[in-house]
This record gives sequence, C-alpha cells and structure tokens, in this order.
Amino acid sequence: MTTKTVQDLHALGMAAQKASRELARLSTDDKNRVLLNLSNLLRTEQAEVLAANEQDYAEAKADGMEESYLDRLLLTSERLNGTADEVQRVAELPDPVGEVIETSTLPNGLITSRRRVPLGVVGSIYESRPNVTVDIFGLCLKSGNACLLRGGKETIRSNTALVALLRRALAAAGVTEDAVQYLDNPDRALVDAMLRMDQFIDLLVPRGGAGLVRFVAENATMPAVTGGVGVCHTYVDRNANLEMAAEIVHNAKVRRPSICNALDTLLVHSEVAAEGLPLIAKELTGSGVELHCDNRALSILGPDAPGTSLPAQEDDWGKEFLALIAAVKVVDSLDDALEHIETYGSGHSEAIITEDESAATRFLDEVDAAAVYVNASTQFTDGGQFGLGAEVGISTQKFHARGPMGLKELTTYKWVIVGKGQTRP
Amino acid sequence: MTTKTVQDLHALGMAAQKASRELARLSTDDKNRVLLNLSNLLRTEQAEVLAANEQDYAEAKADGMEESYLDRLLLTSERLNGTADEVQRVAELPDPVGEVIETSTLPNGLITSRRRVPLGVVGSIYESRPNVTVDIFGLCLKSGNACLLRGGKETIRSNTALVALLRRALAAAGVTEDAVQYLDNPDRALVDAMLRMDQFIDLLVPRGGAGLVRFVAENATMPAVTGGVGVCHTYVDRNANLEMAAEIVHNAKVRRPSICNALDTLLVHSEVAAEGLPLIAKELTGSGVELHCDNRALSILGPDAPGTSLPAQEDDWGKEFLALIAAVKVVDSLDDALEHIETYGSGHSEAIITEDESAATRFLDEVDAAAVYVNASTQFTDGGQFGLGAEVGISTQKFHARGPMGLKELTTYKWVIVGKGQTRP
Repeated sequence: MTTKTVQDLHALGMAAQKASRELARLSTDDKNRVLLNLSNLLRTEQAEVLAANEQDYAEAKADGMEESYLDRLLLTSERLNGTADEVQRVAELPDPVGEVIETSTLPNGLITSRRRVPLGVVGSIYESRPNVTVDIFGLCLKSGNACLLRGGKETIRSNTALVALLRRALAAAGVTEDAVQYLDNPDRALVDAMLRMDQFIDLLVPRGGAGLVRFVAENATMPAVTGGVGVCHTYVDRNANLEMAAEIVHNAKVRRPSICNALDTLLVHSEVAAEGLPLIAKELTGSGVELHCDNRALSILGPDAPGTSLPAQEDDWGKEFLALIAAVKVVDSLDDALEHIETYGSGHSEAIITEDESAATRFLDEVDAAAVYVNASTQFTDGGQFGLGAEVGISTQKFHARGPMGLKELTTYKWVIVGKGQTRP
Repeated sequence: MTTKTVQDLHALGMAAQKASRELARLSTDDKNRVLLNLSNLLRTEQAEVLAANEQDYAEAKADGMEESYLDRLLLTSERLNGTADEVQRVAELPDPVGEVIETSTLPNGLITSRRRVPLGVVGSIYESRPNVTVDIFGLCLKSGNACLLRGGKETIRSNTALVALLRRALAAAGVTEDAVQYLDNPDRALVDAMLRMDQFIDLLVPRGGAGLVRFVAENATMPAVTGGVGVCHTYVDRNANLEMAAEIVHNAKVRRPSICNALDTLLVHSEVAAEGLPLIAKELTGSGVELHCDNRALSILGPDAPGTSLPAQEDDWGKEFLALIAAVKVVDSLDDALEHIETYGSGHSEAIITEDESAATRFLDEVDAAAVYVNASTQFTDGGQFGLGAEVGISTQKFHARGPMGLKELTTYKWVIVGKGQTRP
C-alpha cells in the first residue's frame, strides 16, 4: 500500500516507534534468527527481487540513466548472495545491547551503572543501491532499532521486493514486521516531512553523494550522521621511506578511487620532492591517474610527463575527486603540511609517511580528523577494517561517533540506579 | 571592547577556534595551573567583581526584577568562595584528554586505537547566574576546549569582571587568553548569529529555563545539549515498602523542588493506595506540597485533606512544576504506570519503589529515560552524585551523552592508526 500523505508517513513512524520498544527487549538469539532467516531468503527467494529489479533497470535505462548509476542499481544473483553473506556476518557480531559500560557503588550504597540501549528508530535516506535496504535493516535490527527507509525513486520495485523478504524473515522468527517501514512514494514533499519527524526518528542516516548528505544535515531536525565526504591528504615527510610512500600513495588513490577514504591531495616535502615525486608519480600515472600539480611539482616532474599536463587550480585543493585524479603540492615543512590539511581537509582520513617518530607524533596529535595515519593507506578507514564488523556510515562530525559507525554507534545508554531507600541529603 | 557586529562575533569565534588548537595540546599540569590561579583570584580579587555585581543588581532591582531572579544574579564573597572551591575541585578531576579508549592490533599488523580529544569550541548561552561564566570555563578548559560565552543581559558587568579574572588566570599560566571569549553585547541578533556559527562552535550548551533550552535546540545549526527539563515520576508499586516510599517521595519532591530532577507526578498502585497514599501525602503536605490528585486519589485522601483540594487537570500530567506541587494518580498495574510514564515523561529521571525484583527489572528495562531508579530518590541525577565530579548540564537526548554531562562528555575521539607501510588489498 502506497504512502500517500504526510499522515500516512507519520503512521509509519508511529508503527516503527512502537516496534522499537519490542526490538529493544529482543534476545540476541531472536535477532540472530531474523538475520539468518533473511540470509537464507536472500539466497533462495531471489526470483521476485530480480524480476522487480529488472523492471527498475529497464525503466532507468530507458530514461537515459548513466552507466555507472545503472550499475549501482543492478541486482544479480551473485550480488544478492553477497548481501546474504553480509547479513550472516552481522548475525555473528556481538550484540551491543545490554552491555554494562561502567558500574560503581557510591559511598551511600547506591549502585550506578550505564547500560547500552538502542537509539529507537533509525531513519535512512539513500540513493540507487537497493542492497542498502538490507544493510541498514540488518545493522538496525542487530542493535535493537526499528528503521524507516526511503530509497531511491528508481529502485522502488526492487526495494519493495526486498522489504517483503525482510518482513518474511521477521515474521518467521515471531518478531513484529513493523520493525521495518518503507516509504514507497517518490514524492519529495514526503522526504521533507521525514526530515522533520523528530518525534519518531532518533537518528537519520543519509547514504549517497555529497549533495544528499548535505541536504539531510541542513534540513533534518533530528540528529543526522554527517559524513561520507572525504578530502584526504597523504603527506610524504622529508624522512619518509620513498618506496613505501609510492606504494601507500598508489594504494590510497588507485585501489578504489570512488570512495570517501581515497587520497585526493598528495603533499611532498621539498627536500625529498626531487627524488620522491617522480617515483610516486610514475606509479600513479602508470595506473591512469591524472595529476593536478602545483608549479613546484610540475617543474620537478617536467611539463611533458604523462598525465601531469594540468597545473593545479585553486579549487583542486579541498576537492573530493572520487576519480583517478590527484592534486599534488610541494611543501617546505611539516608545519606547512599541517596548515594545508587544516585549511582544506574535511576531517575524514589523513596520513603521514615518515620514519621520524617526532614528526609522526606531531601529525597524529595535531591533525583534527576522524582517522589519522602513520605509514599506512587511508583506504583502511572502514568499519570492517577497524574491527567493527560492519558500518552504517563514516562520520566526519565530532558528536556521538567519529569515523566508521558500527553497531555500538547505533546505541545510546541509560543510567541505571539501584538503591535501598536512599534519599539525597 | 564591545562586540558590535556579526563580524566582531565571528572574530571571537575565530579566536576561540585558534586557541582551541593550543588548548588541545596543553598538559594536564598547565590546565590545572590555570584553574588553581583562577581559584585563588576568585578568593583574593573579589572587589571589582562584587562592585560590578552591585551595579548589575541595583539596575535589575530598579527595573523591577523579581526577587528570585535577583537572588540568582547576586554575587557575595561567600558565593565567590564557593565558586573558587568548585574550580579547585575541577582541577583535581582526572584529565579526560589523551585517554586511549581502546586499542587493537589487526591481523595485518596495523595498530588502531581511539584517543580521546577535545571537541574544540564550546559555546554557552545562559541566563542570570554569573557563576555559570566560571563553571563553564573551568569544565571547558579542563577538557581542552575553548569557550565562547553569552550570559544574561542583566549581568554583563559581573560577567565582564569575571572574564577579566579568567584571562588573568590564563595569562599567569602562560596560556592564551583567547581560550575564553565573551559576547558582551545584549543584542538578540547576535545570539541568533551565534546559533548559526557552526563553522566555529562545536557544541552549544544552553543553561537556563525551558524556554531558552528549547529556543537553542530549535535554532542552533551545531549540536546542542538538549536537557534541563525533567518531568519526573515516582511509581509506588504494589509490593513497595510504604514507609520507604514516603521518605523517597518526600525527598524527591521537597529537597529542592526547583530543579529538573525533582518529582512531578506520583503514581501509586491501587492495591496499596488506601494504605500508602495517606502516609505519603501526610509527609508531602506537611512540607507544604500542594497535591493535584486524580479522582481515585482524591477519594482516598478525602476532599478535605489539607493541600489536596485541587483535582488534577489534564495538563497536570506531563507538567514540570519546579515548585512545591505534585500530581498524584492511582494506577492499576505496572503496565499502566509504564504507559503513563511513556506518554507524559520527558526522558529525564524515573523511579519505581518496590520490593519485587521482577517489577524492578521490568521498570529498569522498559522505561526509556536518561536515569531509571529502583528504591531511590530521583534527586540523585547529578554529575557530582554520579561520580563525574562536575557537570555542564543534564542531557535528555539520546545522542552523544545521556544524563549528567561531565568532562568526558565534552570530548570526542579520533582513530589513530600506526602502520609500517600497510596497503589495503
């Protein structure tokens, strides 16, 4: 049944909120049962999902959608199996709910503790990838949260078919199907209404491009995860191992250029630029990376070096390329590098390559970002890599959670105080 | 020099942000030196502060300010000594900055850890108490944050004199005086501008009445602490020790009726109401508490019982009285009590009085509030009481921090990753 009005949408929010109270008290076993059911259904009941996706795909293609977007939209049997694997992995993660964060007995005998509890209802607004529907649901369910989902308008059929599987997985485990709510109406006015539903939604997770994230951050009346945008620097210090630098920089840029932890700007200390820059540039341009160099870098690499024909423009600094492009700048000191990062960084992931411990320490101490690295690729900034198991997103804000947000970051806590009649003097 | 324009205010924000980078790296000793300097100055250099406060007081009195507000505005030598004591206690608290929250070595040899760091710049908008100027500064400084303060318009002279002491305390320890910025212009347009300064202010702490807190929460573009408002219930279960109940309820209401953790509504199980309610009511009315009873409570207490002449109105439920008034309701079950609290509570502090462990467990599990109690007075919800040492406020939101916010809650963390050349496969 299609959600037609803001009242309908509020009804979804109310149902999610009601379900969230049941979810908050669900046992770990029950939650895992839902996830394992879902994992099975994603493998065995693919026909309807794939048929729905085929329709979405055909329509989007007929509407002239770009190839890269079409690829994000596409579901295949293999992709559904991959999603099933991920859901199974979430089932295997420890349950964060109920964890006692700290406990103490006060001098008056009161026992205080902080206990981890779910946030309540997590809203998510996302774009074309239909697998996000399953991802967000899995993480929310495991952390005891209900969810209210609004996917891309081009994937409503795929998402509707996936939500049907989510509900079957819930029902088969005896858990309320209201744990997932899906807004199946593409009307933008309903998105606007959703952003103001702070009486029902405790956290909003935007998943998509920078435009969507900014729109949500600026318009949501409830807390929202600000992130997903990374302008990432790697600074090659004068005491760097230059071969290591070339390998790390190559990995940070080329492994997957389209993700937020990919390198955008390379900073090289002037004392090692003459030797190091050609080494690093060779690796990068060999993989098809276009280098936007400042004048000093350009004069070292030579104006005719392949891929370096473009002098950097002012707006190359602070740009998230999401492509095989890197800005390159020669700096005269660690201080200059720190200042550049402070001016142009987005507080996501920043790295120094150095063998000098004091330079490394200053970099780690002074760079204000979600993740700061010594001698490693910034592409490691990821919930799975950091041992969180999975992530709903990467936060570049300072409040609540910074960096990859996993199951714990979808929870809050309550103070629990047990007394024997104590009154406060 | 008075802040005249939005540009001037931005200059204060920029100066605070610059100072925050210095503060983030300050040693614990340096921070404590500032605090101890300040504690001394507050004892020995009272003349100018008291003279300024005298002017503020006289002017506010001439303007017809109510007695209770005048009292909040008033500084005395004794009050300044009390504030000095508090600053000294903050110096004695452990420094949260630099704490390693967790660390692990990944299979690839990367060492990851999360390190506690300051938020950056904390803004505070508060009302008539000038001691808030010192309190907020002390907590911010100890947690490595710069602060931008906007106090009540009636206390600009007092605050200006206090800020002069803060700056002397900083300077005498060799720390930048820009660590504290004070907006000394009462123009409301500048408050509006401050609420939109998310490029400079990382967290906004409103301190004052419900109106101020709501205004800040609705209008601030940066995260703000939502709290300070508490509609608190105490539920006397059918298995309660009724004498204990009478004592706890009396304390929760009467000890300090004007604070947010004070009892507002008393819920009593119908099976013990006939015996318990008169016992509890006697304690309360004996201390001058006016009881707004529902019909069943009224019929038990009798229409002529002193202080109970008022039948409860619908808007008595969910009201924060901040006075010697309590709403009283008889309920038929724990479920009814839970439902009432869910409907009317504000998520602050809620208590059950019971000897029945399973009822206690259900209450603790199912009530969604910052602090949930068994057999104790809700007036314990306080940073000092909970062992945090001090608090900037009590959060009733779920994000970042819930309940009393102390030094740790004024920090965030960064991921620190140390490698030896690792790249991501």
